[in-house]
Amino acid sequence: MGIESTKKTTPVVRPTRENNLWLTEEQTDGMRLSLRVVQTLYQKKTAYQDLLIVDTAEYGRALVLDGAIQLTERDEFCYSEMMAHVPLCSHPDPKRVLIVGGGDGAILREVLRHPNVELCTLIDIDREVIEASKKYLPSVSCELENVRADVRCMDALTYLETTGDRFDVAIVDSTDPVEFAAGLFQAPFYADIKRILNPGGVLTELTESPFADTELMRQAICEMRKVFPIVRMYWGAVPTYPTGMWTYGAASLAPDPSSPLREIQGTRYYTGEIHKAAFVLPPFLEAMI
Amino acid sequence: MGIESTKKTTPVVRPTRENNLWLTEEQTDGMRLSLRVVQTLYQKKTAYQDLLIVDTAEYGRALVLDGAIQLTERDEFCYSEMMAHVPLCSHPDPKRVLIVGGGDGAILREVLRHPNVELCTLIDIDREVIEASKKYLPSVSCELENVRADVRCMDALTYLETTGDRFDVAIVDSTDPVEFAAGLFQAPFYADIKRILNPGGVLTELTESPFADTELMRQAICEMRKVFPIVRMYWGAVPTYPTGMWTYGAASLAPDPSSPLREIQGTRYYTGEIHKAAFVLPPFLEAMI
Repeated sequence: MGIESTKKTTPVVRPTRENNLWLTEEQTDGMRLSLRVVQTLYQKKTAYQDLLIVDTAEYGRALVLDGAIQLTERDEFCYSEMMAHVPLCSHPDPKRVLIVGGGDGAILREVLRHPNVELCTLIDIDREVIEASKKYLPSVSCELENVRADVRCMDALTYLETTGDRFDVAIVDSTDPVEFAAGLFQAPFYADIKRILNPGGVLTELTESPFADTELMRQAICEMRKVFPIVRMYWGAVPTYPTGMWTYGAASLAPDPSSPLREIQGTRYYTGEIHKAAFVLPPFLEAMI
Repeated sequence: MGIESTKKTTPVVRPTRENNLWLTEEQTDGMRLSLRVVQTLYQKKTAYQDLLIVDTAEYGRALVLDGAIQLTERDEFCYSEMMAHVPLCSHPDPKRVLIVGGGDGAILREVLRHPNVELCTLIDIDREVIEASKKYLPSVSCELENVRADVRCMDALTYLETTGDRFDVAIVDSTDPVEFAAGLFQAPFYADIKRILNPGGVLTELTESPFADTELMRQAICEMRKVFPIVRMYWGAVPTYPTGMWTYGAASLAPDPSSPLREIQGTRYYTGEIHKAAFVLPPFLEAMI
């Protein structure tokens, strides 16, 4: 009887559960984004920041600096393409490009899609970001060894003050504006950038989220306007950045940054039509700047 | 000696901390968004869903159904304006409008900005959502008592099958497609909507996030195409919805939903230029549908 009863009863199987490991970014004091983590791949305190690379359940591998998600394999194209192709496609003939930060190589990869570009100089202060990206993020770092890539590990401010190099496009891929990156959103830095731009040069920099970082966004655009004759804002979606709504500042010495001059193939977020649409701002955002 | 030592030492003051209360939405199995909560205002298990209204630290009051954020006071305009003004501004003369769901009143408020609209019928299955919104979300529910608002608490499927009313624009503001809302993303439902539309009518429905709900988004557009001759997708930012990148399906019997025919005043997200820009899809999104 007892045995029959046991046979009829479906055995209670405890479901296999994954490790309940989460990467949580405190995007603001009152908002957190969490991604489920499959495995922690690399963790190190470098000379400049806490470096973490994890494999997430839904967004592929993620690069995290000082607790802030810098990129994930799944959605980095949304950011990298808009940082690179908007200034490059607005410029009539971009031969020399400067990237400040961006040691992971994502924006460099997009820049080198442009056949006009003869050399792209990338200045990242932290060699460990570059090395870890080469090892753990191959789809992102794949062009760091390209012959058209000139990768240097040094303080960008020192580089800008001492270099004789001149550029057609500068792209500032900063971390959040704290500690060593704080100066990268202020007029003296923009003046340094202006000095190393050729006539008709263009600068692009991330300017954060209008919901999460309103004041920083407003100030960055304000500081750009002190230095450059043409300053425009554009925006796009980046799911793993705070609020998913991401803004960019485009400063120019002559070309209209909102007008693409040529198409680029093989992109997943950027097109010439997206380029133009990204400069159409909702009134609430227009009113902030 | 002991006393002197005590005087010199700065006393350890434990900082005043807020309640560490968080609203956490499991947006997908591997992604969570959390908002810091100041106070829980109302919590009830209704006949249809778990209803929660909280006051958040950064997004004002939030309406939460079955654990999913339906709106926050701070960013609901991004969603409400795009749901209402895209179909209404595409229609040459929208006199009668139907809202399915939307008991909070946010979309109704936007619909009634249009002087053409003579009557807007709102069908929400859950009277408790309407009553709680009236009490706790005055900036959202403010037009629920408008003489041009015809608010009814009943199952929308029953209404569609039995009504003799006809509409120029239908807006489907569903919750996530589970349980009683599951039918609201399928061809038979779209056929019901088509039947109550006047010639030249337009339908808009949210179609979720391409990163968080790819399959649902694809299916909803596919099902719409089985019923309507013109189906287009558009998108925009909504910070507190999954991934912040939100898509909408626009189905039409004649007008081009991507072409605004008139402007609307007093909006914070929508403009005619935003309307057109929202229909420009990144290639990765275009490829999904």
